[in-house]
Order: sequence, then structure tokens, then C-alpha cells
Amino acid sequence: MTVYKMTLQYDGTRYHGFQRQPKLLTIQGTIEKALTTMTKGKVVDVIGSGRTDAGVHALGQVISFDYPGDIPADKMVKALNSLMPRDILFVDGNWAAHDFNARFDTVSKIYEYRVALGRYTDPFLRLYTGHYPFKVDLNRLQLALEDVVGTHDFTSFEASGSVIRNKVRTIYTADLDTSNYPHEIRLIFHGDGFLYNMVRIMVATLLEISNGRRDVHDFLRLYDVQDRQQARLTAPASGLYLKKVFYPVNTVD
Amino acid sequence: MTVYKMTLQYDGTRYHGFQRQPKLLTIQGTIEKALTTMTKGKVVDVIGSGRTDAGVHALGQVISFDYPGDIPADKMVKALNSLMPRDILFVDGNWAAHDFNARFDTVSKIYEYRVALGRYTDPFLRLYTGHYPFKVDLNRLQLALEDVVGTHDFTSFEASGSVIRNKVRTIYTADLDTSNYPHEIRLIFHGDGFLYNMVRIMVATLLEISNGRRDVHDFLRLYDVQDRQQARLTAPASGLYLKKVFYPVNTVD
Repeated sequence: MTVYKMTLQYDGTRYHGFQRQPKLLTIQGTIEKALTTMTKGKVVDVIGSGRTDAGVHALGQVISFDYPGDIPADKMVKALNSLMPRDILFVDGNWAAHDFNARFDTVSKIYEYRVALGRYTDPFLRLYTGHYPFKVDLNRLQLALEDVVGTHDFTSFEASGSVIRNKVRTIYTADLDTSNYPHEIRLIFHGDGFLYNMVRIMVATLLEISNGRRDVHDFLRLYDVQDRQQARLTAPASGLYLKKVFYPVNTVD
Repeated sequence: MTVYKMTLQYDGTRYHGFQRQPKLLTIQGTIEKALTTMTKGKVVDVIGSGRTDAGVHALGQVISFDYPGDIPADKMVKALNSLMPRDILFVDGNWAAHDFNARFDTVSKIYEYRVALGRYTDPFLRLYTGHYPFKVDLNRLQLALEDVVGTHDFTSFEASGSVIRNKVRTIYTADLDTSNYPHEIRLIFHGDGFLYNMVRIMVATLLEISNGRRDVHDFLRLYDVQDRQQARLTAPASGLYLKKVFYPVNTVD
């Protein structure tokens, strides 16, 4: 058996999220089906660095799996790509340490959120951005992003239904990319971990702050109250990209 | 009755082309349905500057129609947008001369073709580019584009099934945009008219020339032989955009 660490991109539009579900098209299910074809029926369990929801995209999702054989890693990339639909693309592959686990060995992740501005949704961006048709004040947004950085209790920014107990996460950087403004802005978060829907709830709150609907330092209050009901909105899945997943340096052979 | 001239964009992915077809989703059918809603059942015939095929996109398609009423043009833009799915967007509207016809009054058109390069199809561009995984020589491409400009018989570049007799068209400019090279190149054609599938057949031929599979001046031979079988390939619909349609200056009020 060989452990593979593979990096892939996907357009999440057609998928019911990453995680395998009976009778529904998912990223994990599609990859596992291809691997089962390659092994001629032997089941291979795919482990993702984390789940992505329906409609969420990936530029650098990472998976690991045990494979019964020792195909060179670049051949594994080619073999999988030949079996993937055109909205999933493997971009890198390595043999990994025998105990490597793409989920549990994660050190940190980068998520990017693309916000399309302007009155109407651009027909060509509707599946690849979240649309915010209201005024944004970039200075207010920048000030609020500074409150995101650091170690905080993100209870207010977690969708209900999660079983995770510890809601404290550290955000290393929270950056604003205005290179495409006023058509679009991008919000980029690098953190040691993210709660369920945390980025999408933070983005919705940040946009409300930038629009003046919330106090510029409302994040400080929201950390304090630890109440999901106070951060009401969730930005659409279509704008969210899992951009990069970091692991310890000695992960791959 | 008021004649409207409206400009719209659409992502053609979901549509069976522009032209109305029974029981199939089309751009014309979608707009006519919305207008019928607005007129409370009175049928409005939409005239497009030209048809676009299934999967072909538009950045500046123009339509005209007679409407029983005199809604201001900007209100017509808003009303139609409120009834459109998110992959069709009206971007401009005017009252037009009473005899304006978006098809017959066309003076010239610009089409753009986006070619994605590189070994694999980018998951995020698969619906918005044509993918060419082979080597392209930009100098050869540039030389071939110079042969496209001018007045020529484009019989070799017309898909079969057309009833149009006159195959002579004038191409004013044929430009190469390399601002995104080596990821992507764009080919932009401005001409007084285009035969059925002409841009897609020209693009496929241009790519074969740039790859060295055809003589750099093969267009001159193809004009001469007037034989569709000699220009074999058709580039995918997904890369083609109807970018702009020109009319006489006195078209709108």
C-alpha cells in the first residue's frame, strides 16, 4: 500500500459538496469511484483536508488515500485526471508518509471569498462570486478585517448543527484584494482552522460593516456575545474558494 | 407601439442557442416569455442581430421588438432584468426608429474567441473558453490573421446547411490579444458579416496554422478552393462571444 497526497481544483457548482452522500454527486464520491475503477473494484477511502459545501470551489484542496500499488505520483495525477469530469482537475501529487492524513495533519488553510459588486449580477460571474449590490466603504472594511486577525472565540460565526466543542481559532492574516475594484473585491483569510460556514458568515458580516449597517468594530462585540443569532447572514457558497492547505514540511517523501 | 433596441449579455451554457425552439430553453424564448408576462398575454416577437448557437455567449447581443406601450427605455431594462434568470442581463436600452430591425439594420459585428492553452482544461474556464492543449506559435498566428483581413469568399469556412448564397464577407480587423498568454489567447474579429460557424471554423484553422499543421498562408488556398471539407475542424462553442453589434448612428431616438 502507498499513501498518496494529492492536490486538486474543482468548480463546485454541480456538486452536493465534498463529502460522499448516497445517490448524490459529490467530489469525494467522484474521486472514490475513479479509484475503484483503477483498483478494479477494491474500495479506496478518500480523506479530504476538510469538507466544502455545495457550490463551494477549490483551488488547492488536498486529499490523501491508501492505494494498493505503487504507481509513481505523477502517473497517479494523470490517471486520475483521465477519469475526472472536466470540472475537477488534479494539479499535484506526492507519495506521503505512511501515516499521513490529509484531514488530521492540517496545519492551516487559506480561504478566499470573491464578492461581485454593482447593481446586477454579472451573468459570467454568478456561479463564481457572491453578489453584493450595495455600497461598500473600503476603509471600514479594512478596519474590520484588522479585528478578524488574532485568536478569538468564533461561536457567533458558526452555523448551527456543529458538534465541535472548541470554538477558538487563530486567524493569521485577513486581507483585502482590491485589484479588480469597483467590479469585485476579494477577502483572503489564513487561519489554523475554520468552523462550519465561518468564512461565509464573516464575509456577510464584513459587508454589512462596510455598508454601514453595523458598527465598524462589531466583530469585537460578536466575539464577546458568542451568539450565532447576532451575525445573521451567510454569504453565498458560490463566492468561496478553498485556496491552500498547509501541512508540516516532512509530510511528503 | 414603441420599438425598443436593447443590448444584453448572456452566458449561453444552459441554452439551446438564441433562436426560439418549441420545448427547448433558448434566449429568444426566454425574453419573449418575459415580454408576454409584461403585456399580460399579448405576443411580442423578438428580433436578434443574429443567432448564436448552443453554448455561445454574448457580451453585447442586440435585439429589437415592438412593444404595445411606451415604457421609458431605462424602465424597460429594469423590468426585463427583474424577469430574467441570472445568466441573462440587459445592459442598455433605447427607443428606436419605428422601422428599426436589429437583424436587417446591422452594419458590422465583433466576435471574440477565447482559447485556453495548457495541457489540461481549467475547471473554471471549461464553459467559457475553447481548450487547445497543443503548442501555439504566436508569430505564425499573427501572420495568418493578416490573411483574414480583407474581402474574401468564405465558402470554405461555412458550416453546411446554410441557404445563404453570397459567401463574400469583409473582415476589417482580426486581432490577437496575448495579455493573458501563456494561459490564454483571444482572437477578435470585426467584420460586416459572418457565415454560419465561420468564426469557429476560422479559429480552428488558425490554431492548426499556429501549431504548424497547416501552411502559414493556408487561408489564401482555402479562399480559393471554396470547399468546407478542406477546413475540417470547428472550435468549441464555449469559447465564442458575440461582443458588439454596430448600427447606423441614427438608429435610436
